Amino acid sequence: MTTTAGILIIGNEILSGKVQDANSPYLCRELRALGVEIKRISVIPDDVDVIAKEAATFSSAYDIVITTGGVGPTHDDVTIEGIAKGLGRQVISHPDLERVLRTLYGGKVNRAHLRMAQVPEGAELFGQPDLVFPVVVLKNIYIFPGVPEILRQKFDGIKERFRDAPFYLKKVFVTAGEGSIAEHLNAVMREYPALLLGSYPELNNPEYRVILTLESKDPAYLDKALSRLVNLLPATSIARVE
Amino acid sequence: MTTTAGILIIGNEILSGKVQDANSPYLCRELRALGVEIKRISVIPDDVDVIAKEAATFSSAYDIVITTGGVGPTHDDVTIEGIAKGLGRQVISHPDLERVLRTLYGGKVNRAHLRMAQVPEGAELFGQPDLVFPVVVLKNIYIFPGVPEILRQKFDGIKERFRDAPFYLKKVFVTAGEGSIAEHLNAVMREYPALLLGSYPELNNPEYRVILTLESKDPAYLDKALSRLVNLLPATSIARVE
Repeated sequence: MTTTAGILIIGNEILSGKVQDANSPYLCRELRALGVEIKRISVIPDDVDVIAKEAATFSSAYDIVITTGGVGPTHDDVTIEGIAKGLGRQVISHPDLERVLRTLYGGKVNRAHLRMAQVPEGAELFGQPDLVFPVVVLKNIYIFPGVPEILRQKFDGIKERFRDAPFYLKKVFVTAGEGSIAEHLNAVMREYPALLLGSYPELNNPEYRVILTLESKDPAYLDKALSRLVNLLPATSIARVE
Repeated sequence: MTTTAGILIIGNEILSGKVQDANSPYLCRELRALGVEIKRISVIPDDVDVIAKEAATFSSAYDIVITTGGVGPTHDDVTIEGIAKGLGRQVISHPDLERVLRTLYGGKVNRAHLRMAQVPEGAELFGQPDLVFPVVVLKNIYIFPGVPEILRQKFDGIKERFRDAPFYLKKVFVTAGEGSIAEHLNAVMREYPALLLGSYPELNNPEYRVILTLESKDPAYLDKALSRLVNLLPATSIARVE
C-alpha cells in the first residue's frame, strides 16, 4: 500500500491573502518524489479548536501528517496547544528544546522564547543531532514551522524516513482539444483502471493544447497503458511524449 | 456579521505536485478585499465521494463556497457529479449551457463537449449576459473552472455580489525579535480582544525582523489599538508604520 499523507497549513495570514503559502507546493513536490500520495491539504486559521479537530481527523486518516505554521513565541502561535488538545495530551516543556533555547538566547531568554520548547506530552524529537532545532513529532504528526527556509531545512533533515516506492510518470502533449480526445482517455481507463491519468488543458500555448499525465508505481503497466493511448490518439495530434 | 467563505480546490494535479495552485491565493486576496472572511481552504482529489462530502460540509458551514477545477469534458472532471451527490441532486443538462456549447463547437460537438452543460438539478446561472459561459451556482456553492485565466474572468464577472464592509489594515515593521515583543502583543490583545493581530517573522531582511498586522472592520477601534501598540513597543524597535 502506498504511504498516504495529509498536509495541514495553519495560519490566518494565508487565509486573509497577506502571505501566499509556499510550503504546500514544496511539500507536494517533495513527498510525491518520495513516492508518497498526498490525499488532502487543509488551510485553517490559528484557532486551537479548529486545529485540534483537524489534527485528530488527519492523524486517523493518513499515514503521515505534516503541519506548518503557528509554532513561534507569540499569542497567535497555538499549533502545539491545538494538536495536544486534539490528541488528548497535556502541553509540557521539553528539556532538550529548553536547553537549545537557553543556549541560543542566553541571559535574554524570557517566557515567550521558552514557549518554543513546549510540546504535546509524549512527543519525540527527530533529526538530532544534525538539526539544531529538531522536528517535533507526536504519533504520526510532524510539526514544522511556517517560515519556508526553516521548514525546508528541517524537512530535508528527516525526509528519507518517508521514502516509499517511486511513482513513474509519462507525459503526452496533445494538439487536439480535450473534448475530441475524451473518448480515447475513457477507453484507456477502462482497460487500465489502476492508471493515474490526468488531462490538463493549457491556454495560449502554441505547441499543444492539452498535457496528459500517466502515472503508476508499476513501470511495465505504465508503458503498456502509454502504448495503448498513443495508438488510440490520432498520430497528428501528438506533439511529443516524454 | 462578516460574510464567511470556504474554498474548495479540486484536482489531483495539485496534490501530486505537478501544478501549483494559483487560484486559492487569488481568491483569498480578492475575497478579503471584498470584506469576506475566508475560514478554510481544502485541496482534495478528483473523487466523487470526497467532493460530495466536502461540498455538503462547506455548504452548511460557510456563507459562500467557491470550488475550482474538475469541470471539463474528460473522465477526471467529476466536480458536478460530486456536488450533486453531496447535496442530494440529480445531474441534468442545462439547456442554456447546451446551447452555448452547440454554438461553440457547431457540427463537431460530441458527448464529451456536452458534459460541460451538466449541472446539479436546481442550479442557477450567474453572470449572464456578460459571461459567454456563466457561473454555475447551486445554493451557496459557486462552481469555477481550474484554468486560472478563465476563473479570474468569471470571478470578476460576479464578484460584486460578495461585497461586505471592508477590513482596515495597518502594518508595523519591527526591528526586534518576536520573543522580545510578545508580551506587548499579549497586552494589546487583552485590551483589544476583537483586534485581528498577526505577527510574522521575516528572515534575512535588513530593514526589519517582524511584520505586525492589525486589522478590524471598525477603523476607530483599529486606530486606538495601533496607538496602544506603538506606545508599548520601544520606539527604537519600530522601523515604520503603514
